Amino acid sequence: MAKKSPLAPAGFPDIPAIPGVRVAGASCGLKYKGRKDVFLAALDKGTQVAGVFTKSKTAAAPVHWCKRQAGKGRARALIVNAGNANAFTGQAGEKSVQRTVDKVASVLDVPKSQVFVASTGVIGETLPDGRITKSLAGLKKSLTPDNWTDAASAIMTTDTFPKGAWRRVTIGDTEVTIGGIAKGSGMIAPDMATMLSFIFTDAKIPADVLQTITARAADRSFNAITVDGDTSTSDTVLVFATGAAKHAKISKPGDAKLRAFRTALEDVMTDLAHQIVRDGEGATKFVTVNVTGAKSARAAKKIGLAIANSPLVKTAIAGEDANWGRIVMAVGKSGEEADRDLLTISIGGVAVADRGMVVKGYDEAPVARHMKGDEIDIEVDLKIGRGAATVWTCDLTHGYISINADYRS
Amino acid sequence: MAKKSPLAPAGFPDIPAIPGVRVAGASCGLKYKGRKDVFLAALDKGTQVAGVFTKSKTAAAPVHWCKRQAGKGRARALIVNAGNANAFTGQAGEKSVQRTVDKVASVLDVPKSQVFVASTGVIGETLPDGRITKSLAGLKKSLTPDNWTDAASAIMTTDTFPKGAWRRVTIGDTEVTIGGIAKGSGMIAPDMATMLSFIFTDAKIPADVLQTITARAADRSFNAITVDGDTSTSDTVLVFATGAAKHAKISKPGDAKLRAFRTALEDVMTDLAHQIVRDGEGATKFVTVNVTGAKSARAAKKIGLAIANSPLVKTAIAGEDANWGRIVMAVGKSGEEADRDLLTISIGGVAVADRGMVVKGYDEAPVARHMKGDEIDIEVDLKIGRGAATVWTCDLTHGYISINADYRS
Repeated sequence: MAKKSPLAPAGFPDIPAIPGVRVAGASCGLKYKGRKDVFLAALDKGTQVAGVFTKSKTAAAPVHWCKRQAGKGRARALIVNAGNANAFTGQAGEKSVQRTVDKVASVLDVPKSQVFVASTGVIGETLPDGRITKSLAGLKKSLTPDNWTDAASAIMTTDTFPKGAWRRVTIGDTEVTIGGIAKGSGMIAPDMATMLSFIFTDAKIPADVLQTITARAADRSFNAITVDGDTSTSDTVLVFATGAAKHAKISKPGDAKLRAFRTALEDVMTDLAHQIVRDGEGATKFVTVNVTGAKSARAAKKIGLAIANSPLVKTAIAGEDANWGRIVMAVGKSGEEADRDLLTISIGGVAVADRGMVVKGYDEAPVARHMKGDEIDIEVDLKIGRGAATVWTCDLTHGYISINADYRS
Repeated sequence: MAKKSPLAPAGFPDIPAIPGVRVAGASCGLKYKGRKDVFLAALDKGTQVAGVFTKSKTAAAPVHWCKRQAGKGRARALIVNAGNANAFTGQAGEKSVQRTVDKVASVLDVPKSQVFVASTGVIGETLPDGRITKSLAGLKKSLTPDNWTDAASAIMTTDTFPKGAWRRVTIGDTEVTIGGIAKGSGMIAPDMATMLSFIFTDAKIPADVLQTITARAADRSFNAITVDGDTSTSDTVLVFATGAAKHAKISKPGDAKLRAFRTALEDVMTDLAHQIVRDGEGATKFVTVNVTGAKSARAAKKIGLAIANSPLVKTAIAGEDANWGRIVMAVGKSGEEADRDLLTISIGGVAVADRGMVVKGYDEAPVARHMKGDEIDIEVDLKIGRGAATVWTCDLTHGYISINADYRS
């Protein structure tokens, strides 16, 4: 494994047991020797599921399967492997998914349509699914309510640390827990790719309501981060709600009793999303881009992503250069409405450009100090509307090039 | 000046005199000492003009002026400076343009509305336009019909070589010449940016016809290249037709007599566009991406640009790795229709993936040899339609990061 990212959190969080969920991780030989590479979650009867998937037009076989099954709202099992993405494997890939699903259904005695599958790792190579299915009996035996470290480790590819997060909130007077794991560090060398996240809660929330709040939270977390702007063929976020908690009935996404839960779900996703950025390939700076005053929230997000995806902005940050000109360029290229002569930019809380020009008497010293830190804040106010959005990214460094170009040497 | 790009052409072409055009380059002190940084072209009465400009929403002051004037179709002069882009300079920038235009109009005794202006260089700093206007009398004296080397050199910023191209064709039985210069090498450190190109011909073509054929040719040349996917606030292409040639009257873009001219104009633009890619920051490979079988030409171009802009594809090429999986990923992220199980990819003319899977018995050796060269060919056939497009790019290397991130160290 590569050296741990300098932006990694202090350690893996103590995610507690979540009633209705049991997890296990094992090594089935798909990845490097001695590393866990398969993760199984068993879910109690009645578990509801929601999903958000890659928009790629060349999505991998497991994504096709999960999309279809998530629409039905029920889940009893999740099987995830690392080391092989089962992507661009044609009909053979679809058959691998089917064999894996069949076997998990039979080992756990659950309906096939309620088994979810995700794969991450090299693409274009047939998945040796026999290795996964052979490990199922052992995985079943080792299922426990709280071995989240194994779970998070088993789904890593070139991640430099396992990623987990959890929150506890109440729905009405009843305490519920939300815990989740994720993997991803950009698109991963040599051929690995993918952002995966699996989130579990004991809340009792119908699938359609869960889907609505999941999609909204994902939009403001996983869909608001970027490392290199490249989209995996396998990106998958699944949220499972076992319903073990005994709270009042929830029937709509806007229910006031769900307020704290909605916030907590977004918090867990944002926490995991930030960890992915912090593990971004070659990252040395964690960058927050706040856009306000845009025509709409959608426009603000598009402008934020244009800044966060700009190689010139990202290399300037790597070079600790408060290069606001490149930020203006990125705003311009987003294609969203902007008035050059209203635009205001702050870096590290210090106004740099105002109404289309550098601020009068601009003192670069405090901004230069901010750029030397490892948490960079960029604020752009377009002053033409009320749309706002926040996106997160990392810098673009020699490390990224080394990871993605130099591995043959 | 940085070391000349390894992909540079052997030398600057012998662009001949073009009746109706006189050019001069000089040093006015805006750029580095001893380097030319201002270019003047004087155009005979009756010259028609067409233009294509950046789509940036934060375009620079000279772009605003040129867009407005190009719509009127008449040109008598062009003044271009390097060293300062007059971008993000607010109302002061608009006034700089106005003062420059006024002075050029008075020195050359031409209407103000027929004076075109372009600037490239650092952004966010007020343009000391006095230096430009002071140099005008000298520039006027040194106008000659064929000093294209000075002209091309005067518009360079961090380009590592001057860029020029020309073709001679007939309209009816009359010979006409098309000659042009360009600058650009990605977005240029420390704060420089921009692709500029100025093309001149003695053909007699009305402005509206010239605009139609210019826009089409630019779409297939300058708008089909990418270095880092970042869009300058100043990109400008202007085509001037002096009308000195005595050929039959042209009144519509589809005129059969214009066929050779249309092709030659696109050739000149493509030649110049390729030179910009060959001077791409840090470039070590010139990459051609051919997309066929897409739903439409527009879709094919979008897919081609998704491949050409993908950091993962570009770093793989830098690493001489025939990583077709990343090409599939890029096709998927383009958002355009694709069928994973029909997609065919060739590299260097060798089929690598066919119908969604690696080709049976794939022999990597000839592809690996191709990847070691400095001209890389990628072909993607979607097999779902008849749309085709070609785009050009370069690889993404440590050199790009060094140029854009390391200059403070």
